[in-house]
Amino acid sequence: MHIRPAQMDDRSSIWSIIGPTIRAGETYALDRNMSEADALSYWLGDDRETFVAELDGEIVGTYYIRTNQRGGGKHICNCGYMTSAIATGRGVARAMCQHSLVHARQHGYRGMQFNFVVSTNTRAVSLWESLGFEIVGRLPEAFQHPTLGYVDALVMFQPL
Amino acid sequence: MHIRPAQMDDRSSIWSIIGPTIRAGETYALDRNMSEADALSYWLGDDRETFVAELDGEIVGTYYIRTNQRGGGKHICNCGYMTSAIATGRGVARAMCQHSLVHARQHGYRGMQFNFVVSTNTRAVSLWESLGFEIVGRLPEAFQHPTLGYVDALVMFQPL
Repeated sequence: MHIRPAQMDDRSSIWSIIGPTIRAGETYALDRNMSEADALSYWLGDDRETFVAELDGEIVGTYYIRTNQRGGGKHICNCGYMTSAIATGRGVARAMCQHSLVHARQHGYRGMQFNFVVSTNTRAVSLWESLGFEIVGRLPEAFQHPTLGYVDALVMFQPL
Repeated sequence: MHIRPAQMDDRSSIWSIIGPTIRAGETYALDRNMSEADALSYWLGDDRETFVAELDGEIVGTYYIRTNQRGGGKHICNCGYMTSAIATGRGVARAMCQHSLVHARQHGYRGMQFNFVVSTNTRAVSLWESLGFEIVGRLPEAFQHPTLGYVDALVMFQPL
């Protein structure tokens, strides 16, 4: 697995990964109907650094890292990760998270926070826990899941 | 106390309230050195509704309400409140919060979330608890207080 900064050339590959996840609407609090342009503007925004993960020369995952709060909160970072459906179960999310933790430490962040992990995304919750994150908050029925209705969202945190 | 939507004319009054709070840097995760223009752009942003509280014809407080997350999270709102130092202890924050809860219910929100309440701001924490909010999360050392160093931040929530 090779993880590197995203380039402008990667936009269509990135959309092929984030598009289906956004359209499914089961794991991210983003408008399911957002346009490709809006989704790429969000994922590759000026306020964040975006990376891609390659496996056998193909982009199979992407993540961003950004500062979570301003001012007195700027020593904590936030990340979002998405993996291609075809590469599920091959350790792509784990590798990206480990990469982001190294990157965050190198850049002097003192903690990493996930603001909104959908509680029914148990695969992700278990993965983040195995990588050192703890559930530090539970937002009751804060996410409307397309098939399960209102479900809790979790705040997860790891000091660095 | 009269609470009404903020007008363009209120900008200097609003700055006279939010400026000292931002410069103090003790309660909001905002850059202490942000310019007046940036602070007003933030407080009066297109993504939120902003109100002012008047006492004897003078603006003594201001708050905003906005949608906290997009997509499946858009049924939860978020607010920020600031009170003039000279009006502290006169129930301005309480009145604004009560106003925001009514406004939120009228607009169909199903919950109100405060993402980042500095734990040393005990006056605010007690006030929000007395108005029905619960601490649903604790972010360890997520805020660098200008005199107290790294302190916890709290996530507070109220279903509506």
